[in-house]
Amino acid sequence: MGIDIGGTKTAVVALGPDGSVVAERRAPSGHGPDGVVAVALAVAHECADAVGGWTQIASVGACMPGLVDPRSGLVTHALNLGVDALPLGPALSDALSRPVVIDNDVKAAGWGAFQLHGGDPDTAFGYLNIGTGLAAALVINGQIVRGPGGIAGEIGHLPLAAPVPCRCGQTGCLETSASGSGLTRMWPPARHLADPFAAAAAGDAQAAEAVRHLCGGIAMAIQALVLVGGVEHIVIGGGLTGLGEPLSLGIAEVLAQRAAQAPLLDELTQPGRFSMLSSDVPIAALGAARLPSAAAQLDLQVAP
Amino acid sequence: MGIDIGGTKTAVVALGPDGSVVAERRAPSGHGPDGVVAVALAVAHECADAVGGWTQIASVGACMPGLVDPRSGLVTHALNLGVDALPLGPALSDALSRPVVIDNDVKAAGWGAFQLHGGDPDTAFGYLNIGTGLAAALVINGQIVRGPGGIAGEIGHLPLAAPVPCRCGQTGCLETSASGSGLTRMWPPARHLADPFAAAAAGDAQAAEAVRHLCGGIAMAIQALVLVGGVEHIVIGGGLTGLGEPLSLGIAEVLAQRAAQAPLLDELTQPGRFSMLSSDVPIAALGAARLPSAAAQLDLQVAP
Repeated sequence: MGIDIGGTKTAVVALGPDGSVVAERRAPSGHGPDGVVAVALAVAHECADAVGGWTQIASVGACMPGLVDPRSGLVTHALNLGVDALPLGPALSDALSRPVVIDNDVKAAGWGAFQLHGGDPDTAFGYLNIGTGLAAALVINGQIVRGPGGIAGEIGHLPLAAPVPCRCGQTGCLETSASGSGLTRMWPPARHLADPFAAAAAGDAQAAEAVRHLCGGIAMAIQALVLVGGVEHIVIGGGLTGLGEPLSLGIAEVLAQRAAQAPLLDELTQPGRFSMLSSDVPIAALGAARLPSAAAQLDLQVAP
Repeated sequence: MGIDIGGTKTAVVALGPDGSVVAERRAPSGHGPDGVVAVALAVAHECADAVGGWTQIASVGACMPGLVDPRSGLVTHALNLGVDALPLGPALSDALSRPVVIDNDVKAAGWGAFQLHGGDPDTAFGYLNIGTGLAAALVINGQIVRGPGGIAGEIGHLPLAAPVPCRCGQTGCLETSASGSGLTRMWPPARHLADPFAAAAAGDAQAAEAVRHLCGGIAMAIQALVLVGGVEHIVIGGGLTGLGEPLSLGIAEVLAQRAAQAPLLDELTQPGRFSMLSSDVPIAALGAARLPSAAAQLDLQVAP
């Protein structure tokens, strides 16, 4: 079982022995430490019921945003969920009377995407999550790259964009353009799920400018993952993948334009350099479900 | 023995069994494929003579700028040395009648700095080379991160700076501020080795602006290495380390200012996050000398 406690919804999946999804349940996430745990447990119980009860569940992995310490099971700074500090691992383990492995949601999604992509430890792999914010996960030599304090992947807070104030305190962060919040800032109808690519095609100049910024920012994130992290393949996930093929084509077009200017960047335009998940894949829950079996390899402490 | 064919000089070191430098020779680098190899061999012979002849040399590693394929021994795009394509590995192996392992110079220097720093495979390690240009090397899980086509580490070509044209074809690349060429562009006396920190302290406003850009750019490179690559410790090498402690203090000051704005960046200011090599350490030659013994681990083909 994989439990993904997201900023808006909590998704739980149960996987069969072959890794396929045999049950999936979702609900709006709770708020505050108690609310978050209560909703996660309720959805987990529903999902367990759907497969014949907890005796059918061999292991449980869970993930949520914020600074997650897999060793202690403590989650801090998950501000969107009203959580300043929450011992998520122990809370779930106690309630379910079984060990629960936890990790940060983007790192869990990155692990899931890496497995879906074949799980080859010799491929330096990147996962780029474009939701309200922007973050990445790297899997190098079959290991999730963590960095000091788990900071690796906070690519949204590289000041690479126009000097717009960012919620992190800096200005010009990549997240101010390459994210859902960046898109709605540039083109407010996106807040109500209007399609900026369709609007741009229909002649809306503000929408055209917004998608130019969005695709440019995402292309820059890809450039940083390859030039700094040496990543060979990047999977894009997160809510903005709902924009579909026009987003994918827009990113590829920017990369091609940059490589035409700078031959050094040719590598960015190679076929297969990036791909995009379908927006209905519960990738973080899938990744969370696959954490327990890799707990030793990834040095994740299983909460007792 | 380690041979470092640099853009201006070729340095060769011979290491004793304990890893200490027992001989060192330097000469201005040759130009063009034949010139580069001829000078490298001449300096290598001198250095071998200094330790009692080639029978005393157990292994040879070599490095140079450009795109280096350690498997084939081929070096391409070493434009500053007038080299479009050069089979450096086979050329040195044939002339010295022994296998020679080769790699890119910044990657070799990164390997050397990693070893000097203790060589702990559990530490995600970064090396930042600030010479005429700007490039980095990452060692993660005890492996040099290469990336597609060896592009990993080309951090100088992230467009993070003011929109100044870069030699790579893009504008605003980090290298246009965080490098020797960036410094001399902002403050021409640096070309003649005048000290911009001393000038800034003496009231030269242009020098003060130049060091502000330089330290800001280097701090941004550190930020990218930590936020993308998850690097825990960064060693700074390259010609600009000749600026000494004022440079180190200037970088630390910028990082502290950024962290004061953005708590997310606190990790960047932790003691020991970065250190600077003394400018007289021949780090690339030292790293090259240590490549042969790690050839299997690093998957470097030894040219026959």
